[in-house]
Amino acid sequence: MEIGRKLWVIAEGYIPSGSSGPAPQLTSHETACILNPSDRAAEIELTIYYPDRDPVGPYRVTVAPRRTCHLRFNNLDDPAPIPRDTDFSSVVRSSEAVVIQHTRLDSRQPAHALLSALAWSDR
Amino acid sequence: MEIGRKLWVIAEGYIPSGSSGPAPQLTSHETACILNPSDRAAEIELTIYYPDRDPVGPYRVTVAPRRTCHLRFNNLDDPAPIPRDTDFSSVVRSSEAVVIQHTRLDSRQPAHALLSALAWSDR
Amino acid sequence: MEIGRKLWVIAEGYIPSGSSGPAPQLTSHETACILNPSDRAAEIELTIYYPDRDPVGPYRVTVAPRRTCHLRFNNLDDPAPIPRDTDFSSVVRSSEAVVIQHTRLDSRQPAHALLSALAWSDR
Amino acid sequence: MEIGRKLWVIAEGYIPSGSSGPAPQLTSHETACILNPSDRAAEIELTIYYPDRDPVGPYRVTVAPRRTCHLRFNNLDDPAPIPRDTDFSSVVRSSEAVVIQHTRLDSRQPAHALLSALAWSDR
Repeated sequence: MEIGRKLWVIAEGYIPSGSSGPAPQLTSHETACILNPSDRAAEIELTIYYPDRDPVGPYRVTVAPRRTCHLRFNNLDDPAPIPRDTDFSSVVRSSEAVVIQHTRLDSRQPAHALLSALAWSDR
Repeated sequence: MEIGRKLWVIAEGYIPSGSSGPAPQLTSHETACILNPSDRAAEIELTIYYPDRDPVGPYRVTVAPRRTCHLRFNNLDDPAPIPRDTDFSSVVRSSEAVVIQHTRLDSRQPAHALLSALAWSDR
Repeated sequence: MEIGRKLWVIAEGYIPSGSSGPAPQLTSHETACILNPSDRAAEIELTIYYPDRDPVGPYRVTVAPRRTCHLRFNNLDDPAPIPRDTDFSSVVRSSEAVVIQHTRLDSRQPAHALLSALAWSDR
Repeated sequence: MEIGRKLWVIAEGYIPSGSSGPAPQLTSHETACILNPSDRAAEIELTIYYPDRDPVGPYRVTVAPRRTCHLRFNNLDDPAPIPRDTDFSSVVRSSEAVVIQHTRLDSRQPAHALLSALAWSDR
């Protein structure tokens, strides 16, 4: 049985510019945790949506078969870095069925905060 | 393929009256992150439900095509502001399919806390 | 159109016994946020499941039509209070379709932490 | 009516190696909260996926009928402990329908942080 979906949406997105604590673990970051449980490489395309300008993308990532990728949005830079302190949303399309969960670590203040939510998929 | 749904529910809702840290980033807030991936403007109507009085609404917001809107409940004021330190829930109806995720930043104490959850939609 | 479901599960449950900060807002608590958007009173029954003993319930709560109830598990006491510092899960059945989101405020340490997740429903 | 599903995915996974505060309550941990509302024991198998090596498993756990198990990934050690400070994902298969929610307590810094999300299931 196939596990997952090929289209996911993370409506929340925000990378705080400030951080406290040792890098990279406690650097403020926004992550899409992508599990590819299939036996084929998953070719992933992300499109980033903003409040006041056109979407940017696709960003391309490959997740190997039977591997997980905790993708930090902080590290995306092609076609363009994602600006800090800016609201965004993302749409993720995959060649294979995957499962995506969204997590943020916010260390703007010394005791960091966390959030996580299941991404949305059409079922 | 259409992405999203036209009816969403956020059962949790609470805007803390207290905040610490620089405004507006670290002002305690409650947010509905709304992605409109479609090619048409999404006319959004929110209704706010309370524990002990009739629902208030609709609040109206337009999300432009292919844009995201991280809507702070703190800023809603027509037909009426949402009281602080008060439990509420919200129902969101949209003219176009959208995806909604709920986030709170609570900075009542100096090291702020975060929560996030996917909103509920009928699938 | 009916909004919501009549059966919900919150697999996570834990009420920390310790708290810091002013009560009741910052008392450590576990909450089921229940929205009843219907025009009829929702008769709610909760059953609490434990790791090592039989389930306890039903706990009964009524949510009036078009009202929300942010139900603190801390306050349940009939048929029995829920012990602190104890893992549990809950199953919620409702006479009307409702939507449920789960939230915890944990103030065992002075800067409180938050978590939230959509409850699970059969769709 | 059967409650739950037999296949679940938690795409996020990370056990911080550091902790502050009294153990075991405030030890940094990653938890799968598993409710087995059925009348039969649920035989659970977990497989852990990593970014850069083959999946490890199955880990086997039994959840008794009508019981909850808040399973700490920290405690899994057969066939191998889960390394700290390492990204992972998990796939959970159960002989009976169950419901799973994911929670992390991160106490690397003195004021701990929490996150929680519903696990993903095929509906």
